[in-house]
Amino acid sequence: MDQVICTVDVVLLTLSADGLEVALLRREHAPFKGVAALPGGYIHADADADARDAARRVLRDKTGIEAPYLEQLATFSGAARDPRGWSVSIAYYALVPAAMITQAERSELRLASVDRLPPLPFDHAAIIETAVSRLRSKSQYSSLPCHLLGEAFTLPQLQRVYEMLLGESINKVSFRRKMTEMDMLEPADGQFETAGAHRPAQLYRLKPAFREQLRLLERGL
Amino acid sequence: MDQVICTVDVVLLTLSADGLEVALLRREHAPFKGVAALPGGYIHADADADARDAARRVLRDKTGIEAPYLEQLATFSGAARDPRGWSVSIAYYALVPAAMITQAERSELRLASVDRLPPLPFDHAAIIETAVSRLRSKSQYSSLPCHLLGEAFTLPQLQRVYEMLLGESINKVSFRRKMTEMDMLEPADGQFETAGAHRPAQLYRLKPAFREQLRLLERGL
Repeated sequence: MDQVICTVDVVLLTLSADGLEVALLRREHAPFKGVAALPGGYIHADADADARDAARRVLRDKTGIEAPYLEQLATFSGAARDPRGWSVSIAYYALVPAAMITQAERSELRLASVDRLPPLPFDHAAIIETAVSRLRSKSQYSSLPCHLLGEAFTLPQLQRVYEMLLGESINKVSFRRKMTEMDMLEPADGQFETAGAHRPAQLYRLKPAFREQLRLLERGL
Repeated sequence: MDQVICTVDVVLLTLSADGLEVALLRREHAPFKGVAALPGGYIHADADADARDAARRVLRDKTGIEAPYLEQLATFSGAARDPRGWSVSIAYYALVPAAMITQAERSELRLASVDRLPPLPFDHAAIIETAVSRLRSKSQYSSLPCHLLGEAFTLPQLQRVYEMLLGESINKVSFRRKMTEMDMLEPADGQFETAGAHRPAQLYRLKPAFREQLRLLERGL
């Protein structure tokens, strides 16, 4: 059997006022030491139960973040992507509210707009592009966008996130009908947000069953 | 870096009169020697450009089949799935017409219904289940089912394949409108099929641009 380098990389996505952003870390070791890159690392066969477990460990150790929603994205592999040799990167992506990254207080962590990425090592630009494309595509028919918001949010806030990801406006009545059909939200009791002259809006949160797995919509938004 | 076993496995799916079937091969070596399993093998770092290239090589060498459509499915990994040690299987799936398997004339190749799988080694049952689920899900909004048919087919034949995969009947007018919208078919000139008392049906084939990549439908069937 030939020696193959086995790693995991994590695309940690969040939403700021400027749009969709990805978390980057300066690499501590060669190759590409000091360059901003995706959080990643070797699989530890003695410690990780599987690649997902490795991705959780890498994310926790390097960013201090425990992502509630982490999904396998795709595997990037080959002789050409890493100067150290033939390599496999099992890539995962995670969605978290922006506050979770601020609270992590890791000075070496920076956010970059997915539309204006700095030069990245390996095939990390392609991995991020694949993650953004997956997120936009899954936003059409799943609960995925909810994970970009905090624990509780109003329906107008959620609609704006879906619209931003889909790149088009959605009719409010149709959006609410789809949310009802998905049956993934529950009221966050006793919590309201006042928005200027409008009446207070109900806050919602994901039902517990859908915090770690997606709710899918058969026919899309 | 810890030693990790890196392999590829291929779920080769086809359609017979009995429904969806998967190609299995008796394993030549331990572990599970002699047991029917997915065609798979080690990545050859000295020969394969990437994992997709490895999957193509394994499929060609072990089944004699060059699948026009081969897509990465997911990566299965961990300490528990292979008695030899911590392992990664980058799984691909391919769709071919049944005639391509018959013509391969490999006596060690057998087809099993995806609904009545024999006991399988490793996590091959889970890999096949993931492939079938992906195929059914992608059939809702892509050209994927076309690859189960031969080079030329009639619209009624194609509709039956979509219906079988989706598990529901589709209105004929709606199906034809969606096929027009997808704009993925072209007439196979001068070829017609006579079907009993009906007038001859036009034969179609995939446009060249969509023989190796999918055509997607924005809103689903």
